Amino acid sequence: MKSVKKIINEPQNAVPEMVDGLVRAYPQYLERIPGSEAMVRSDKDSMIGKVGIVSGGGSGHEPSHAGFVGKGMLSAAVAGQVFTSPTPDQIYAAIKAADHGKGVFLVIKNYSGDVMNFDMAKDMAELDDIKIKSIIVNDDIAVEDSLYTQGRRGVAGTVLMHKLVGAAADQGASLDEIEKLAKAALPHISTIAVALSAATVPEVGKPGFTLADDEIEYGVGIHSEPGYRREKIKSSKKLVSELLAKINQEQHLDPKHQYAVLINGMGATPLMEQYIFSHDLLDQLETQNIKPVFMKVGNYMTSIEMAGISLTVFELADSTWLKYLNYPVETIAW
Amino acid sequence: MKSVKKIINEPQNAVPEMVDGLVRAYPQYLERIPGSEAMVRSDKDSMIGKVGIVSGGGSGHEPSHAGFVGKGMLSAAVAGQVFTSPTPDQIYAAIKAADHGKGVFLVIKNYSGDVMNFDMAKDMAELDDIKIKSIIVNDDIAVEDSLYTQGRRGVAGTVLMHKLVGAAADQGASLDEIEKLAKAALPHISTIAVALSAATVPEVGKPGFTLADDEIEYGVGIHSEPGYRREKIKSSKKLVSELLAKINQEQHLDPKHQYAVLINGMGATPLMEQYIFSHDLLDQLETQNIKPVFMKVGNYMTSIEMAGISLTVFELADSTWLKYLNYPVETIAW
Repeated sequence: MKSVKKIINEPQNAVPEMVDGLVRAYPQYLERIPGSEAMVRSDKDSMIGKVGIVSGGGSGHEPSHAGFVGKGMLSAAVAGQVFTSPTPDQIYAAIKAADHGKGVFLVIKNYSGDVMNFDMAKDMAELDDIKIKSIIVNDDIAVEDSLYTQGRRGVAGTVLMHKLVGAAADQGASLDEIEKLAKAALPHISTIAVALSAATVPEVGKPGFTLADDEIEYGVGIHSEPGYRREKIKSSKKLVSELLAKINQEQHLDPKHQYAVLINGMGATPLMEQYIFSHDLLDQLETQNIKPVFMKVGNYMTSIEMAGISLTVFELADSTWLKYLNYPVETIAW
Repeated sequence: MKSVKKIINEPQNAVPEMVDGLVRAYPQYLERIPGSEAMVRSDKDSMIGKVGIVSGGGSGHEPSHAGFVGKGMLSAAVAGQVFTSPTPDQIYAAIKAADHGKGVFLVIKNYSGDVMNFDMAKDMAELDDIKIKSIIVNDDIAVEDSLYTQGRRGVAGTVLMHKLVGAAADQGASLDEIEKLAKAALPHISTIAVALSAATVPEVGKPGFTLADDEIEYGVGIHSEPGYRREKIKSSKKLVSELLAKINQEQHLDPKHQYAVLINGMGATPLMEQYIFSHDLLDQLETQNIKPVFMKVGNYMTSIEMAGISLTVFELADSTWLKYLNYPVETIAW
């Protein structure tokens, strides 16, 4: 059998070894919950009296989700096998570690496996009298229904949701207030991506799909789910036009509103390309008289070594949301 | 002509468009120096009374160097064409913007073009009565002399140098003190890399070298310069053994000393692999009774979309150096 060209050992150990490397490299932020691939903030005292925020999902999206664990953002994160939902008992372990009597809020990306397993973990926690609320993030406007999803998929916009609810929790918001915030913000977050290449899951050993040397695909998901159109590679300006047109169809961008923008590299996309894409995006937004009031560019929700980029636009319909985005955090990756 | 599969427009505009995207996405950190590809801190007032720190080099190493411009780190950075030294006039523009009467310290990676052009810029600045000192970083222990270098190349350890001198400058160190610090630290910083694939310069349109599907090369530079050995892909544990043995030959790691470690992805290497590598590194250091007191893992000094990883070990021979590494900064990418 040909080896996979990756810096790994046995493919089936990739996730536990990754979690081990992560918590040992960053003990100031993270502790592993014994017997699990769940990680909790190491500054436990500063979580006291506050609602816990838990997220997670399949591995392969690093720095999501453990890279966002820390003061002002997530309380705990749980890492499933690559592109596979974490099990209910692991999610439950993260919930227990994040609970300090004020309840725990779950941020779940909309994949059938995640929704089911987080739901089971929620039932387990409620038997323990831990109050739980949750939001299912479905920001990907590319397609309705998908390989692993009913409705729309949860992608990079999830990181903005982490930031919002994490900031609110750190400032003492109640579980009900956090749920209200998340529900209010969700419909204003839209994401769409373009892929230049596919990801290879270590245990599978070959890419999840193939594109010709000069071919791209719009709307691909973060687990190699199909998008909506393939065509020859275009200039950055034309890629921006395509993705921004989709965002406009959804959100009807309006210069009277304020917007935050997240440009997200999918894993193998150089920052150089992400910044060029930013340049073109800002130019094209300018023709609509829109200038984002908040912007981040980098690798936040990846798909292993997929080359590609996603654009998330978040309409800041409530003035507190910008404050939450700018609220200071102590994490590895925000 | 076949298009290059990159998110770019005209290849010859990649750098100016990248710089434009960067400064517009992050106006809170960066301002473009008019008429140049040099960028300076936008919080100019907080540089007053302090030594300026300037670095830069060819583009393609993002987030280096502009991602490290900000309070506590660099005052200005200058971006040359891809893998090409910036011109003396652009470096001079960065020096002028960084000077606030206390002099300017230059952090230069050891490539013949950079050394020559920074030297010419230094001469230009001295004619303006700006005091200049500099350090030439040559942390790559893989090979002596190389395609573009006499002696050893400057690679990811440069980012640690930025951090040290930036922290000292922010705390009011004089130009002489900063030079002394940089000279003292330099011999304690060693880096070595392994490449799994090569980078493609946009204007060239094909990879700088080729490796077979199952082949890796130890000691490759950040501009596709040759390394010291090719062989079939190995497990992460074996890659760590090879690289750590080279570091040990150079530094004779000793449990009586304190070490900082930087694990650096070269562009297309997933964080998952970087964390697995971290796990194996920490295991193998443990057999030498060594536990790093400071660690960073991520993409700091990339080579466009090269897959590969570098290991930097920095012996903290002076107790202030750890404080400098931990000193708070306000940058895009530290």
